[in-house]
Amino acid sequence: MDAIDVITTKRDGRELSREQIDWMIDAYTRGAVAEEQMAALAMAVLLNGMDRREIADWTRAMIASGERMDWSGLDRPTADKHSTGGVGDKITLPLAPLAAACGAAVPQLSGRGLGHTGGTLDKLESIPGWRASLSGTEMLGVLRDAGAVVCAAGSGLAPADRKLYALRDVTGTVESIPLIASSIMSKKIAEGTGSLVLDVKVGSGAFMKTVERARELARTMVELGTDAGVRTVALLTAMDRPLGLAVGNALEVAESVEVLAGGGPSDVVELTVRLAREMLAAAGITGGKDPEDALKDGSAMDTWRRMITAQGGDLDAPLPRAAETHTVLAPASGVLSHLDAYAVGVAAWRLGAGRARKEDPVSFGAGIVLHAKPGDVVQEGTPLMTLHTDDPSRFPRAQDSLSDAYTIGPAPALLPLIIDRLTP
Amino acid sequence: MDAIDVITTKRDGRELSREQIDWMIDAYTRGAVAEEQMAALAMAVLLNGMDRREIADWTRAMIASGERMDWSGLDRPTADKHSTGGVGDKITLPLAPLAAACGAAVPQLSGRGLGHTGGTLDKLESIPGWRASLSGTEMLGVLRDAGAVVCAAGSGLAPADRKLYALRDVTGTVESIPLIASSIMSKKIAEGTGSLVLDVKVGSGAFMKTVERARELARTMVELGTDAGVRTVALLTAMDRPLGLAVGNALEVAESVEVLAGGGPSDVVELTVRLAREMLAAAGITGGKDPEDALKDGSAMDTWRRMITAQGGDLDAPLPRAAETHTVLAPASGVLSHLDAYAVGVAAWRLGAGRARKEDPVSFGAGIVLHAKPGDVVQEGTPLMTLHTDDPSRFPRAQDSLSDAYTIGPAPALLPLIIDRLTP
Repeated sequence: MDAIDVITTKRDGRELSREQIDWMIDAYTRGAVAEEQMAALAMAVLLNGMDRREIADWTRAMIASGERMDWSGLDRPTADKHSTGGVGDKITLPLAPLAAACGAAVPQLSGRGLGHTGGTLDKLESIPGWRASLSGTEMLGVLRDAGAVVCAAGSGLAPADRKLYALRDVTGTVESIPLIASSIMSKKIAEGTGSLVLDVKVGSGAFMKTVERARELARTMVELGTDAGVRTVALLTAMDRPLGLAVGNALEVAESVEVLAGGGPSDVVELTVRLAREMLAAAGITGGKDPEDALKDGSAMDTWRRMITAQGGDLDAPLPRAAETHTVLAPASGVLSHLDAYAVGVAAWRLGAGRARKEDPVSFGAGIVLHAKPGDVVQEGTPLMTLHTDDPSRFPRAQDSLSDAYTIGPAPALLPLIIDRLTP
Repeated sequence: MDAIDVITTKRDGRELSREQIDWMIDAYTRGAVAEEQMAALAMAVLLNGMDRREIADWTRAMIASGERMDWSGLDRPTADKHSTGGVGDKITLPLAPLAAACGAAVPQLSGRGLGHTGGTLDKLESIPGWRASLSGTEMLGVLRDAGAVVCAAGSGLAPADRKLYALRDVTGTVESIPLIASSIMSKKIAEGTGSLVLDVKVGSGAFMKTVERARELARTMVELGTDAGVRTVALLTAMDRPLGLAVGNALEVAESVEVLAGGGPSDVVELTVRLAREMLAAAGITGGKDPEDALKDGSAMDTWRRMITAQGGDLDAPLPRAAETHTVLAPASGVLSHLDAYAVGVAAWRLGAGRARKEDPVSFGAGIVLHAKPGDVVQEGTPLMTLHTDDPSRFPRAQDSLSDAYTIGPAPALLPLIIDRLTP
């Protein structure tokens, strides 16, 4: 077998055999297949597709390229959540301790942000002292002690995916449902969770712009999880407007803490509670504490404090704040009918909250706080949103991104917060 | 502009602008676009195509990546021939001196073989002392003195094509008509010839297996040449069976010398004469000596001797001969109705006449001599072909390739030697 055989098979619209996929992923991981060869195959896969059997084999081969974690020694069932990413999507922060407070063990390996969507690790790193990298033993310790752990994936987990993800990023081969689904699911299956709830975002601020594409991705991932023995369910949720009122690393941590304290924006609370219930149901945990109660009685907050403190986070230290702010005022009175998630995400990114290249640092304090959400009545001249940055020369380009981002008056209907639910 | 913009434009089925093509080819040549990025673009081009304007821009950008030769100081019009390659295709060897003997100047930059088709430089290098690499001044000297020169292209000519050709070879992106046509024509246009005759081979031993594909390639190349101001004409010619009786480097030189001496196999003579007449017509040379006469009166042979001697070739030294031979006998009596070009090409390659990787050496004496061609009557037990190699352990694999290569008795009709002619 050689790389050219595998590439030309898919190029010519034929199915890849299990042997071809195993050989290609293994040889690529070892460096025996060159980056340019995998790039040509990735483009052929993007344009000619893969069927369910091929995607399952591809995912299995990526898992087999590294280790697979095992939490069978724990006394609780494991459950995890994965979001395809959006603007203001800080849900993991309140959700992981909430699900743990209700009886699940949550072993979440997470990532950093790239482009207009943030990354969970960037958000948590805005807490002074918190560190993302844990050994396997440390990870197990936090999980046993707090019930939940959020940390960086080690390099031993699905190394083929790590290499392929970086390659797709520079070769225009990101937007392939088979490649997206297998990338996400290879990491989540290798992570060893027994059940998984997928939050597939839909809308301008999401990777999937339409409900149809999001449903196809969700269906593909649910099939992959199920085939690998992971109890998997997916929600399609709205990302046409930002989630919550805060966009940016430390700003989102502050909002998450509000939610854990029993307050916070209603959409963040609703989605957090719904996802927690889905995780508990998928893990087979019934008759325990309801997530709504765990937010009210302080038990989710207690779990959060244990989880963050165990990784060095100092919750008594103040969160980083940006040096400069600029307030955008409502240009008219009326109903704020539209506030575009993508435009807000790009503005926050330009203020310093995100990175353009994976080696760039992020500014923890930078971002945007919204003072109104779609549906709210606003008065001309009152604050609509506040931009935060350490570098005021960034304001003009951030404002450019926002110039057509909102409408006061009639506008297209918003997506419902929870659009659909997919099960095996 | 960045590489991902260019890749995703073609990936999504849109036209590349002239600016995108110029930027991409230039950045790739300089190393600012990575191999994996060009591989992804090449696969997108292969699957989504390019239109006439895009192919012309692509070719022009590849020419602009290097120098363009200029023969305007010569006192004769320039004409060249390019073949897309086949089994036993030694036509350049008699043709270049023949066209020169009839009044054209022939500045031919040629290549080495890879896979089952041979390369003109490999064939000429089997002549003791002959060297392929000339400086520009040496090339002009041979051209002035002999009227024809065949040598290796310098690294300054279409360096983008050189890089892209090597990349396509390992990424399954060879079989794209826009990429094949622009690769060939960028080199031929940069070579500076005023007129060009294309010999597009069709059949099992050729790159284009069907007349339709060959016609599309021929039409694309004729358009490219014409648009660049080169008088271009194309013939489609048969490559379902080998051309001539000799396949292999020194074996083909010997057959070429027979043709120049007024003998040789009829198909080689017919095609050589026809291509010479096309070159003269394209160059606007009328009323001079006819190629058939130049073969008979020894003037083509005189030109050959001057041309080879000027590059160090010793025509009095014996040509290399392989150490071992094996004769394949006819298994029955009857008409040899079919003799597959590809199978013969692979057998010659396995005997050592060709190379698997571009850094491999070739065996000059290895190859196959046919004793019968399709249409000939053969007697059971008489020689059908003789295999030549330096390494007798190669015989079994060569014979494997030949096991289904010929038919004695009824078989599909052969292609006519000259199938079609395309003009602007």
